[in-house]
Amino acid sequence: MTTKFVKNAVGRMIPTEINGKPVIPFKGPHGHKTIGRKYGPPIRNCGDYPDDGDKRQPDLKAALVEAGLKDGMTISTHHHFRNGDLIANQIFQVASEMGVKDLVWFPSASFPCHEPLIEYLEDGTIHHIEGSMNGPLGRFASQGKMKGTGVLRSHGGRYQAVQDGEVVVDIAVIAAPTADPFGNANGLSGPSSCGLLGFALADSQYAHKVIVVTDNLVPFPCIPWQIQGNNVDYVIEMEQIGIPEKIVSGTTRITKSPDRLYIAELTAKFCDAAGIIRDGFSFQAGAGGTALAIGNYFGEIMREKGIKARFARGGSNQYLVELLDEGLVEHILDGQTFDLEGVRSMRENPHHVDTSPFTSYNYHGKGNFASLLDVVILGATEVDINFNGNVVTHSDGLLLHGMGGWQNCLFGKTVILPIPLFRDRIPVIRDEVTTICGPGELIDVIVSERGIAINPLREDLIAATKDSGLPIKTIHELKEEAERICGKPQLPQFEDNIIAAIKWVDGTVIDVVKQVKES
Amino acid sequence: MTTKFVKNAVGRMIPTEINGKPVIPFKGPHGHKTIGRKYGPPIRNCGDYPDDGDKRQPDLKAALVEAGLKDGMTISTHHHFRNGDLIANQIFQVASEMGVKDLVWFPSASFPCHEPLIEYLEDGTIHHIEGSMNGPLGRFASQGKMKGTGVLRSHGGRYQAVQDGEVVVDIAVIAAPTADPFGNANGLSGPSSCGLLGFALADSQYAHKVIVVTDNLVPFPCIPWQIQGNNVDYVIEMEQIGIPEKIVSGTTRITKSPDRLYIAELTAKFCDAAGIIRDGFSFQAGAGGTALAIGNYFGEIMREKGIKARFARGGSNQYLVELLDEGLVEHILDGQTFDLEGVRSMRENPHHVDTSPFTSYNYHGKGNFASLLDVVILGATEVDINFNGNVVTHSDGLLLHGMGGWQNCLFGKTVILPIPLFRDRIPVIRDEVTTICGPGELIDVIVSERGIAINPLREDLIAATKDSGLPIKTIHELKEEAERICGKPQLPQFEDNIIAAIKWVDGTVIDVVKQVKES
Repeated sequence: MTTKFVKNAVGRMIPTEINGKPVIPFKGPHGHKTIGRKYGPPIRNCGDYPDDGDKRQPDLKAALVEAGLKDGMTISTHHHFRNGDLIANQIFQVASEMGVKDLVWFPSASFPCHEPLIEYLEDGTIHHIEGSMNGPLGRFASQGKMKGTGVLRSHGGRYQAVQDGEVVVDIAVIAAPTADPFGNANGLSGPSSCGLLGFALADSQYAHKVIVVTDNLVPFPCIPWQIQGNNVDYVIEMEQIGIPEKIVSGTTRITKSPDRLYIAELTAKFCDAAGIIRDGFSFQAGAGGTALAIGNYFGEIMREKGIKARFARGGSNQYLVELLDEGLVEHILDGQTFDLEGVRSMRENPHHVDTSPFTSYNYHGKGNFASLLDVVILGATEVDINFNGNVVTHSDGLLLHGMGGWQNCLFGKTVILPIPLFRDRIPVIRDEVTTICGPGELIDVIVSERGIAINPLREDLIAATKDSGLPIKTIHELKEEAERICGKPQLPQFEDNIIAAIKWVDGTVIDVVKQVKES
Repeated sequence: MTTKFVKNAVGRMIPTEINGKPVIPFKGPHGHKTIGRKYGPPIRNCGDYPDDGDKRQPDLKAALVEAGLKDGMTISTHHHFRNGDLIANQIFQVASEMGVKDLVWFPSASFPCHEPLIEYLEDGTIHHIEGSMNGPLGRFASQGKMKGTGVLRSHGGRYQAVQDGEVVVDIAVIAAPTADPFGNANGLSGPSSCGLLGFALADSQYAHKVIVVTDNLVPFPCIPWQIQGNNVDYVIEMEQIGIPEKIVSGTTRITKSPDRLYIAELTAKFCDAAGIIRDGFSFQAGAGGTALAIGNYFGEIMREKGIKARFARGGSNQYLVELLDEGLVEHILDGQTFDLEGVRSMRENPHHVDTSPFTSYNYHGKGNFASLLDVVILGATEVDINFNGNVVTHSDGLLLHGMGGWQNCLFGKTVILPIPLFRDRIPVIRDEVTTICGPGELIDVIVSERGIAINPLREDLIAATKDSGLPIKTIHELKEEAERICGKPQLPQFEDNIIAAIKWVDGTVIDVVKQVKES
């Protein structure tokens, strides 16, 4: 069978079919208008559920059997436990023992802790993964070893896909730090507390069967119910669902690298010069070392000016919580807590609000929070001279990262990528990015340790910062500077075989990733 | 055209069609199993909504026009403002001025303040009402004057109908005491605060177009978002959306009638004798004068025993809030706040939790809260010797009330109806109720000022209270006692014309109401 290809709106060749399903090529940020109906999951009848609300099952296997686990099903999990997740591996261990084959794993993200799943990808239990493949699983896929084609979506794209019925989840397993026997659940307390469970919201609403697993069962009602028991079929008590020290990374600290600190300072100064940091503004900075430093610089500027931010979007952490507690930020709208201070603040402070990919990122909603942000700070593995961004592959072609909310955040009013000009002597600014995850028209500013490049489309920003004294350059100048130091980078070598598709926020395909050629 | 009728599981003759739609006759409390899919409302695209999240329209008419208001549409409103609502009448005034015809009004309940809508029922703007018709509108319908047939649903039945697509709401208008320009909204503060907006949840999730109307606009984000802006199309600012003193009835007081107090005391004593009032129990008492007194007696018993309730369901009020504040009730799970103390408590106390008909009552969910309650105290206009209950018609046949959550609450573990044996010298216990709203098998105990009747199906309650010294009688004895005093009541006289259908919680029809014969 010959695969047919079409060129999409960013010039990438896209197959007309992936995993046997038809593909819509990317048509531009707002180019594709979906007409249709949201997915309607099966109607359930209360008469089929226990009157006393006690939905407990003895163990994961029992619940999976009750839920009707069988060949070809799509099984979803969430990633609020990050690298401390203990549940996903168990699900597929049970499935493998039961001899179930060709499952699709649909996590909201995967982590190195999921490396044991390679065994189940190899023995046929898992057909393919739809979701980020950080680290080992991505490498496995890049080597062409996964039976099906991986499908990567943004957080918002994942919600969209479930809401629209593009992905029908047969069984969702939601690991919950606190839950009651009815299935109400939250992430705020218990030994495995992770703050919130927003990434599992779509799964709870749309999956045919929903299993809640907890290591902290409380009597009904579990308050607040971030996950509603009315959507839950079964509840399982387990000794441990996550490794606390790997769930929250207490070590998230502001960068000490002078280069990174300089990039952070330059970013904050740029925002100030461009008039973005004004009373009532909003920002999303993320949790990397540079991003944390930028948040701190924002705090300094706000203190100096006597102004405050109306809201900041999390990934929250101790630094952002400090800004909230100090009153410099009125609300944190939080998608995931990155440390215990974030968890505590969300539990105690009503102005630290849990959000979900529905409220924050779903492109197939009546608006979302992402486009309301005045400034968004994001990362990238590569950027090209057309400002296209890559976050999933490295310059050697290996698929090693998921997209998180990156694509969704591109709809912010000003999108800034603070990036070093090179990493391990490999230039970050390219003629063309290896994989296009976001189109250049949505990326406004590149801040590097050797200067700032503004997207020519943003004439307003160019005008506003013209006399700022900041080192404004063209992206070509930045690229040439890096290449003068590191040399022209080698291009990655690929086989023809497509190992993963990169979805845009609207369900279209913006790029594909191919198998890396063995050197 | 001759209407065909079939006899349903409680022996009532039900037409096979209502308002041109096929009818499923009631098959018993759990007798009908719906197989199908939830309704999938249209997929929306963020590109069609303002990037800055500002969805404001100049006025109600502008928003209705934008929403595409046209003949035959279904327009929904909520009743959290009760008799102080200022919005529903305006909608249909606008529609009438625009010359729009044959609308279906789908309120979560209607009140005497909606009497002006009779004009629009008469001029053809409104075809019929699906929802409770308390007072004047019910009388209008009972006189056979409404063009279409009314459809009455419980709060849970209303959610079920919307969720299942049995009712497709074209335009929902949600009056919100506080909202932001994106459409996030809550009922907790502002001049028209009503506590929560749970009755509008289904409308916000499933309606094709959603309009939020507020008299207290705040900058994004409005926290908490009981209604999510991601479901909202338009936002309107208005000077006043409700009359505060009619929204919350500050006059809700415990009964001073010695008969009612005695009934309340007897009810509490019965619960105690039956072993229902134990540590960690749960109850729902409602907000009538007798019900409030029962709550107070529960409090006394708990104090005496040194125990507490795990949760109580509201309609909340100052008395229930006092129990919460005193620690005798650990959580209030609240469907609507009946006074300002309820509003304040919900705003300030995280253990006073807002609920919705989805969590509390939806029969087509994976369980709901109603069946978890140890004891539920409800009212009735009539009960019959088979323990069937009526809450919508009076004994003269007039449709004067909605059902609220009554049907849904019948799934509680023990359902008690504390009722006087007669009202205005008309006996309440009948051979047959005028309208069956709930089947006798779900009603466990009748408590009157002249004794307690236990449903023979509840052998456990009969055994537990046998030696309690309480005045246990048969329902026949109670009925005869009332008739000895008041005489055998006259039966209401009806025309053949069906003016309203009474839906069961699962969408089947349990009874119909006919036009009352003019005397």
